[in-house]
Amino acid sequence: MTAIRRHLHRQPELGYHEHATAAFIEEKLAELGITRVKRLMGTGVVAWLGQEEPEPTVALRADIDALPIHEQTGLPFASEHPGVMHACGHDGHVAMLLGAARLLKDCPLPGRVALIFQPAEEADGGAQGMITEGALEGAAVIFGGHIERLYPVGQIAVQPGIICAYTDEFRLAITGKGGHAAKPHDCHDSIVAASALVLQLQTLISRETDPVAPAVLTIGTIQGGSAANAIAEETELTGTIRSVDPTTRTTLFNGLRRMAAGLEGLYQVTTSVTISDGYPPVVNDEAASRIARDAAIAVVGEAGVIPQPRPSLGGEDFSFYLQQVPGCFVRFGARKEGHEQESAHSPRFDFDEGVLPVGAAFLAQAAVAALSRLDELKNVADRA
Amino acid sequence: MTAIRRHLHRQPELGYHEHATAAFIEEKLAELGITRVKRLMGTGVVAWLGQEEPEPTVALRADIDALPIHEQTGLPFASEHPGVMHACGHDGHVAMLLGAARLLKDCPLPGRVALIFQPAEEADGGAQGMITEGALEGAAVIFGGHIERLYPVGQIAVQPGIICAYTDEFRLAITGKGGHAAKPHDCHDSIVAASALVLQLQTLISRETDPVAPAVLTIGTIQGGSAANAIAEETELTGTIRSVDPTTRTTLFNGLRRMAAGLEGLYQVTTSVTISDGYPPVVNDEAASRIARDAAIAVVGEAGVIPQPRPSLGGEDFSFYLQQVPGCFVRFGARKEGHEQESAHSPRFDFDEGVLPVGAAFLAQAAVAALSRLDELKNVADRA
Amino acid sequence: MTAIRRHLHRQPELGYHEHATAAFIEEKLAELGITRVKRLMGTGVVAWLGQEEPEPTVALRADIDALPIHEQTGLPFASEHPGVMHACGHDGHVAMLLGAARLLKDCPLPGRVALIFQPAEEADGGAQGMITEGALEGAAVIFGGHIERLYPVGQIAVQPGIICAYTDEFRLAITGKGGHAAKPHDCHDSIVAASALVLQLQTLISRETDPVAPAVLTIGTIQGGSAANAIAEETELTGTIRSVDPTTRTTLFNGLRRMAAGLEGLYQVTTSVTISDGYPPVVNDEAASRIARDAAIAVVGEAGVIPQPRPSLGGEDFSFYLQQVPGCFVRFGARKEGHEQESAHSPRFDFDEGVLPVGAAFLAQAAVAALSRLDELKNVADRA
Amino acid sequence: MTAIRRHLHRQPELGYHEHATAAFIEEKLAELGITRVKRLMGTGVVAWLGQEEPEPTVALRADIDALPIHEQTGLPFASEHPGVMHACGHDGHVAMLLGAARLLKDCPLPGRVALIFQPAEEADGGAQGMITEGALEGAAVIFGGHIERLYPVGQIAVQPGIICAYTDEFRLAITGKGGHAAKPHDCHDSIVAASALVLQLQTLISRETDPVAPAVLTIGTIQGGSAANAIAEETELTGTIRSVDPTTRTTLFNGLRRMAAGLEGLYQVTTSVTISDGYPPVVNDEAASRIARDAAIAVVGEAGVIPQPRPSLGGEDFSFYLQQVPGCFVRFGARKEGHEQESAHSPRFDFDEGVLPVGAAFLAQAAVAALSRLDELKNVADRA
Repeated sequence: MTAIRRHLHRQPELGYHEHATAAFIEEKLAELGITRVKRLMGTGVVAWLGQEEPEPTVALRADIDALPIHEQTGLPFASEHPGVMHACGHDGHVAMLLGAARLLKDCPLPGRVALIFQPAEEADGGAQGMITEGALEGAAVIFGGHIERLYPVGQIAVQPGIICAYTDEFRLAITGKGGHAAKPHDCHDSIVAASALVLQLQTLISRETDPVAPAVLTIGTIQGGSAANAIAEETELTGTIRSVDPTTRTTLFNGLRRMAAGLEGLYQVTTSVTISDGYPPVVNDEAASRIARDAAIAVVGEAGVIPQPRPSLGGEDFSFYLQQVPGCFVRFGARKEGHEQESAHSPRFDFDEGVLPVGAAFLAQAAVAALSRLDELKNVADRA
Repeated sequence: MTAIRRHLHRQPELGYHEHATAAFIEEKLAELGITRVKRLMGTGVVAWLGQEEPEPTVALRADIDALPIHEQTGLPFASEHPGVMHACGHDGHVAMLLGAARLLKDCPLPGRVALIFQPAEEADGGAQGMITEGALEGAAVIFGGHIERLYPVGQIAVQPGIICAYTDEFRLAITGKGGHAAKPHDCHDSIVAASALVLQLQTLISRETDPVAPAVLTIGTIQGGSAANAIAEETELTGTIRSVDPTTRTTLFNGLRRMAAGLEGLYQVTTSVTISDGYPPVVNDEAASRIARDAAIAVVGEAGVIPQPRPSLGGEDFSFYLQQVPGCFVRFGARKEGHEQESAHSPRFDFDEGVLPVGAAFLAQAAVAALSRLDELKNVADRA
Repeated sequence: MTAIRRHLHRQPELGYHEHATAAFIEEKLAELGITRVKRLMGTGVVAWLGQEEPEPTVALRADIDALPIHEQTGLPFASEHPGVMHACGHDGHVAMLLGAARLLKDCPLPGRVALIFQPAEEADGGAQGMITEGALEGAAVIFGGHIERLYPVGQIAVQPGIICAYTDEFRLAITGKGGHAAKPHDCHDSIVAASALVLQLQTLISRETDPVAPAVLTIGTIQGGSAANAIAEETELTGTIRSVDPTTRTTLFNGLRRMAAGLEGLYQVTTSVTISDGYPPVVNDEAASRIARDAAIAVVGEAGVIPQPRPSLGGEDFSFYLQQVPGCFVRFGARKEGHEQESAHSPRFDFDEGVLPVGAAFLAQAAVAALSRLDELKNVADRA
Repeated sequence: MTAIRRHLHRQPELGYHEHATAAFIEEKLAELGITRVKRLMGTGVVAWLGQEEPEPTVALRADIDALPIHEQTGLPFASEHPGVMHACGHDGHVAMLLGAARLLKDCPLPGRVALIFQPAEEADGGAQGMITEGALEGAAVIFGGHIERLYPVGQIAVQPGIICAYTDEFRLAITGKGGHAAKPHDCHDSIVAASALVLQLQTLISRETDPVAPAVLTIGTIQGGSAANAIAEETELTGTIRSVDPTTRTTLFNGLRRMAAGLEGLYQVTTSVTISDGYPPVVNDEAASRIARDAAIAVVGEAGVIPQPRPSLGGEDFSFYLQQVPGCFVRFGARKEGHEQESAHSPRFDFDEGVLPVGAAFLAQAAVAALSRLDELKNVADRA
């Protein structure tokens, strides 16, 4: 698995461009003698083990894409593609799922296991395309996980309920009236209006959302004006809104729109707001989480299984699968001891490769356990 | 005149309470043998010299009231009334006008001179009451002046046109929704809304008025909330707006109202704004200013007469007289050399008493000159 | 119990002034034949039941003080003390604890039970005085609870871990340089500086604390300036900081001090900040919570026992007891159906008196259960 | 002159690129038989008339460059160079100076007249290069003027003293700590810090400069962040500061630097500020203004000569000449009646060509008059 991970780390590919990655995965599956393999979405791969019938299927998922980041780790197996890097551990996820394939391929399985190698998690939610093209066919449950620098190797965090956030984005344009820098009274300064709005939006978090409900509003970019000696007619903000419950999300959406509208009268500008739905939150199923917990105990012992006490406000497109079938998304401790812990998406991100057999064993174990405990799971339709 | 000034300085009285001051003025007028004296408004005094007929009259005005300030000068003739002080030089203005009375009383005058000792300049514009009660009867022109620490004794500033500002005041109440300090999402915080408004109002000056037009918006008081651990339902601002031209004044009035209205949507509060007209600006008449200039030259020589290059943004209720008759309001240099110059309204304010004979001579000279140059003056109705 | 509650409701007394309340409690205890009774802190009462020996003791606590609020309920038993009101349910808490006394007084108890009637919960933490004066003598565990409008009668919320916040207060003075409203350039405007600070402090919540860690910073009062036409030399803010973990608390304390210091350079003012420690958070012990949970099940059944999913950001001085001994603080559902639910500290607060027997039974049951499960509890020293 | 103006209008060239313009000027001078012509700075032209000796010389100046603006006038002679336009009337200025050349060429002149056709007024002050390369050789005085839409054709504004502003520019970079949009507590958000600074800088104008001293601080551009879902590490502002007196200018420079420094502590960012000196203010000489006034009266009559009551806050590199020799810069009324008045630098700017003979006559008249009144002028060294 280490060799697989390092090979992929050297050859990272961005979302929807994982051609070499997909070919490599197919090659490794072939080496394992796994022949029921299909390309989806051009660069996605699904492989099936166990029974032929589609039902019941347990799905396991790894994401396979890299990020537009220029690697600065200095690792001997650092990226050979300038400006592209596996800075989120997806190389490890692929290695784990191939490791699970090896563990499962000779097991007698009372059903089918689908191995989903999904592109474009970092892009716009490749999970959706995989679902549309049939990756979840017959699936009763799905499992997946993410390498996590917060915990040491040997710990797996399993938490029912919401563990990731809504990740919505917005674009907000403010149009004033430009003109000569020395004649502010003939203009409506969009930069001043935008600056006031940025400060006002802070109060959506500090005053308008429930303080015990996680919420973030980040303005990621601001862009206004074209000359130092002219008053800027237009300023544009873009940003993201993170929340874990629909009430807070609605409060933030409405607040953003209300404040933009209020700005118009205040500063004699016009505004336009567009909010784009992002990934929904990852909501782990109660029953699937119990199965995942038991699988984790089988791998790392009771002491190694920990809760994730608070949701992350990051996004994860595994949530799209969980809108279709129950499942559980876990976190694999992979802290690299003795190093400063670089967060995911850092150009210096790395992890302890000791996590790879842990992840592989967990995924295999969860698949086997789930096939024998399908009665505990209710399908999504029933849940609704 | 020094004795008169010091006597008054010891016995300062607030606007509308200048009983001892008025009696003292009457006593001094009687000592000069001036008998055509009348009380107006209870604590105002008018005395007439020269011809009996009301027309033509030249009016000279001094204001007589003190301020609610606790004197800290340490002068031997400091205020004997705790918390009340002649901190704006009105004691000197009275002494000057009595000095002018002495100079004029034996002059052959080709008309009438009215000496107006006016109360409540620092209050709400005592000038208005004096006018209503007839102080300007028959007046063709009016002169007055103010002690000024910016110039040395021996200089008189004479400037046609606007020399003082509109001094309007406002009150702005913001009503949100109070509640538990830990539940901001159930409330609308009026203190946060008010703070945002205070910053937004700065942009009325920095962005909405013509940068070459003098303008001030000062929020003098802010008051909100009643407990550290509760969200404030109401916050109130009071302040003043200063301007010297009607366009800027209107821009500021409209801007204040527009921003208060805009705040409502932005922060889910309600607001109410009241703006009270203050003193109009002092607009010196062109012809009266020429007469004043010549009178000043007669007193301090050509070199002593200076322009006032920029209007003051302070207020002066002499403006009410100038809405009725042409006139000119000048500034008498009175810098106390060798001392740090304390501004008017400071508890350490003082001036060089050498200004007193200068002021007296100017007022007397202006009266005499005006009576012989009445044809240069047009009345206000004609000007309009 | 209803009669007791209504009697107390008519005669509310503020913290440290609960003289009639304490006498009334003693009277009711005497009617029950309970004689081991002691006054602490002047207006606090402790009564003991069961064994004579101090160890082991299970403590039960009710708070007894009222609030400086003028009642507007229109209830037939409304407050007869203008401006004072039982608006937080402490009248009910007393009734419950006396009800528990009745249930326990004839029970054979394998240890001692202490009934703590504590003054001044709404003031500055009367719990501390009670502890100093010995109320916890021999105590192995403590239980208490609060009437809660969020849940119906018949539900009890039991939650291990943090359920209430740190409640710290601060005072922040900003000193600029006052002066004439029309001369801002000679002054440093403390109202503008304060307003900027209020907006900046919002970013402590929106940008500097972990978004999944509950945090509140409320500026409850702002006060600046004394005249509409003068620039305010001094403006003062007071407020409260709420948090449930020490990291967030420290971030907020440091951020407040850092921003006040930064303001000095920005606006040429000086600032002073004082932060007063408030109540620590209520941290329910795991083992004591299990005992409480079982006691609650015995009273309202399994379905009636609910978790409290998120901490309240209110304060509760029960936390001081929990710094000494393990324990559990619960919430008794008392929603008044058919009425708009007024929050605690509202002048229209009321609750469903059906909660009284529930609370009494819970407290008695918890005491009995705890005396037989002492081995499950570890003392605080061991826990550390 | 109209033909000249329209030809130039069709062929606008940016500062330092006025090759065709300079050649065209030379051609027109040649047509007039003017042969003492020299290229300076590549695209500047100086021509001399009258006496051969350099002293005394009266200089007349026109600026010749266009602006990077895409014309939207729809005029038949609109710009044929996309993105470049004579939007400030320099085409007219050239026509006027050539018109003056025609008027002067056959006059008996008691000295020398220099016609300065200067490039790059809109760039970085081409006047400086012209001075360095000798355009002012022998000059005792200089005159110039600008087309002005505020007044009708037939008016010339002549004002001694300051008539244009200091035009300084600044660049202000704020560096925080970037990172994941959902982890603000791990970052220092440069966009929030920049927005706060923009609002704070408004108070430099509203609170720190003398309200009767003209002052503008415009932030013309803001640029921060690169992705909607990341916290921006760096945000940059650029802008301009306008003032007409050194005290205000210093106040603004110091205030900008002080506030940037204060921001560092407040928001945990670092800042860097660079302020670039722009054009100094145009200060018309008293004596030269008297000569200009008389020349204007000769052209448009006493009624047509008006003061410019308040300085413009625009910049004009004519100021560099005035640092070397006395002179006067006037404004030629050129309002296009019946059209909405578009300000200079607008893509729809146009003017009434009736101004061309007025300007030509004024410049010729001023040159002739000045040569006969040289004794009234003192050179700059003497003035200092």
